[in-house]
Amino acid sequence: MTTEAALAIDLGGTELRAALVDREGKILAFAAVPTQAQAGPDVVIGQIEALAATVHAEAPALSVVGVGVGAPGPLDPLAGIAVGPPTLTGWLDVPLADILERRLGLPVRLENDANAAALGEWRFGAGHGARSLVFVTVSTGIGGGVVVDGRILHGRRGLAAEIGHMTITNEGERCVCGVIGCFEAIASGTALGRRATAATAAGDGSALRRLSADAEVTGRHVVEAARLRDDLASALLDEEARWLGVGFTNLLHLYSPDVLVVGGGIANGLDLMAPTIEATIRQRAMRAYRDVPVVPAQLGRHAGLVGAASLVLFDDEGTLAARMPVGPSTYPDTPLSKIGTV
Amino acid sequence: MTTEAALAIDLGGTELRAALVDREGKILAFAAVPTQAQAGPDVVIGQIEALAATVHAEAPALSVVGVGVGAPGPLDPLAGIAVGPPTLTGWLDVPLADILERRLGLPVRLENDANAAALGEWRFGAGHGARSLVFVTVSTGIGGGVVVDGRILHGRRGLAAEIGHMTITNEGERCVCGVIGCFEAIASGTALGRRATAATAAGDGSALRRLSADAEVTGRHVVEAARLRDDLASALLDEEARWLGVGFTNLLHLYSPDVLVVGGGIANGLDLMAPTIEATIRQRAMRAYRDVPVVPAQLGRHAGLVGAASLVLFDDEGTLAARMPVGPSTYPDTPLSKIGTV
Repeated sequence: MTTEAALAIDLGGTELRAALVDREGKILAFAAVPTQAQAGPDVVIGQIEALAATVHAEAPALSVVGVGVGAPGPLDPLAGIAVGPPTLTGWLDVPLADILERRLGLPVRLENDANAAALGEWRFGAGHGARSLVFVTVSTGIGGGVVVDGRILHGRRGLAAEIGHMTITNEGERCVCGVIGCFEAIASGTALGRRATAATAAGDGSALRRLSADAEVTGRHVVEAARLRDDLASALLDEEARWLGVGFTNLLHLYSPDVLVVGGGIANGLDLMAPTIEATIRQRAMRAYRDVPVVPAQLGRHAGLVGAASLVLFDDEGTLAARMPVGPSTYPDTPLSKIGTV
Repeated sequence: MTTEAALAIDLGGTELRAALVDREGKILAFAAVPTQAQAGPDVVIGQIEALAATVHAEAPALSVVGVGVGAPGPLDPLAGIAVGPPTLTGWLDVPLADILERRLGLPVRLENDANAAALGEWRFGAGHGARSLVFVTVSTGIGGGVVVDGRILHGRRGLAAEIGHMTITNEGERCVCGVIGCFEAIASGTALGRRATAATAAGDGSALRRLSADAEVTGRHVVEAARLRDDLASALLDEEARWLGVGFTNLLHLYSPDVLVVGGGIANGLDLMAPTIEATIRQRAMRAYRDVPVVPAQLGRHAGLVGAASLVLFDDEGTLAARMPVGPSTYPDTPLSKIGTV
C-alpha cells in the first residue's frame, strides 16, 4: 500500500523548509534553503516549488494528498491569504493557497506559523492526548497558538492568540507595537537579553560578558550562564521566570487549557525557570487552574512543519474549517515551471 | 402545531428565575422567587421544581423539550455538576443536571451563568450574526463568556474565560483573589465606586455624595452624576473607561471576536465611556483589531435565561458538546414532589 503523506512548507523570514510528513508525524523527506525574503513573492513561490520537487524526488513512492503551509502572520487562514508578513518584503494580500493549488495541483491549507506549531505539538508532541492546549513560543518575541477540541482557535480573520501583545503590567520598556506592558516587551528573550546587557558592561569580566564576547548579552547567554550557576544570570532568569508566570497565569484563566506548552529559544532554560514559574502560578492563579502542567515543546523546530502537514492529513477530522471559497485570483500568475509530479 | 420551548432556569445567589423560551428567543412564561441561598441544595432544588411547575401552568400548551440551567461557577458543564458556587451555601459537587433530569423527566444542560449570557447575546442579542463573540459583564466583579463558531469556549473543566482575573497592571487595590492588578480589581463597578468614595467625603456637598445620601458611592452613582455633567464623576468615569479599554484590548488580541458585547450594571454608562474606551483601543490594539465593535448587551437580565434555553433548543447544532455520561449519582434523592407535567 502506498503511504499517504502531506507536503509541509515552513515559510520563515530567514529559512524556507519543506518536508514530506506521514500520518504518524514522521518526517520522510526534508530540504531547506535560505529564504530570498527581499526578492518578493514571485521568487519565493518559485523557491517553494523547487523545494517541493526536491523533497518529492527524495521519496517518490509516497502518495502526496495535499500541502500545508505555515507562514508568518498576519494571514487569513480561511481565505488562504498572506496579508502582510513583516519579514517578507513585498508581500501584501498574496493569495498563497490559491497560487500554490494551481502550481502544485494539490489542495493547499495556509496557517499562521505559531498556530501550525501549536497544532503539531497537540497532535504529535507535548500536548498529545490533551483536549485543549496553549502553545507559547518565547524567543525574539512572544507568539502562540491555541488548540481547543482539536481545532485551532481562529477568531475573526484568524487573528486570535496574539499572546505577545497582552498587557500584563504598566512598567518596563515600550513594546515594538508602541505600548507599555506587553507580555512580549517584558518577557521575551529580547527583553531578558536587554536586562542582562544593562546589568553588565563590556570588559567587566562577568560571566555574561565573557559568554557574549563583550558584545550585547542575549537571552541564550543568560540561560547558559545560569546553567553554570552564575549568580547574576540566575537572578535575571528568576525575574524572567516570574514574568512568564504572570503571563502564563493569564493564559490559564483565559483559555483553560489541559496543558501549556513552551517553545522557542528561551524554552532551553525552562528546567531552570520551572520552580519560579510554578510558584508564580500557584501564587496568582485561582485554585482550579493551579495544577495545569507547563511543559517544554517536544518537536523543536519541526513543530510547525508537522503541524502544517496535519492541516491536510487530518482535515476530515475538523482540524481546520474548510477554506471559504475565494473568487478568481487577480494575482499575476507568472510562468514559473510547473513541477507536476508532486 | 405545538410550539417547542425550553424551560430555562437562572439560578442566582439572590434571585431564582424560570422561563419558557421558544426558538426565537421569546419568553412565553416567566416567574421568579428569592433564592433560599442559605438553605442548602435540597431546598433550592425544590424551589426550582416549584418554579418549573409555575411557568408550565402559565403556558400549558407548549411542548417543553428540555431544561437549560445557568448557575454561578465554578461548575462543570460537561458533567453537569455545580462544583462550589460561593453564593450558594452548602453546594459542593452537586450533580444538578442529573438530579433535575430525574425530577423533571427531561434532558438538562448546565452552564456557567456568564457563558449562558454570552450564548444568549450571540444567538438573540447584540452578537446576532457574528461568528464569534466576547461577552463581558461589568458589575460587582467582572465576568465573561466567549462564543466561537457557535460554541461556548469551555476549555478544561469549563473554566475558560475567567476574564476578571486577567492581570492587566501592577497597581491598584488587591483583588479578592489576593493578587494585584486583576482586571476586576481595577475596572469593576466596585472598583469605580471605591475610587469615587475615596475622592469624596460624607457631607462634602458633592454631587456623588448627594446621590449616595452621604453613604458609600457606587459605580451607578458615578454614572448617574456623570450623566448630569458633574466634573468629578466624569473624570472618574473616564479613568474607568481607560481601564476597560486596556482589558478589552487584551480580549481582542487573545480571542479576536467579531464583536465585544458589554453587559452588567456599568454597561448603563457605556455611551458615556465609549469615546475613551475606543480611544484606548485605538491607541493600544494592533491595527487589525481596532475596528471590532464594542456594543452594549441587548437582552439585559434575560440574557442568561434565553442563553440557557438555547443550550437545549439548539443542541443539535453543536452549541454544547454532549454531556459526558456520568455514573449513578450518589447525591441523596430527597422525596420532593414530582411535577410530571413539565
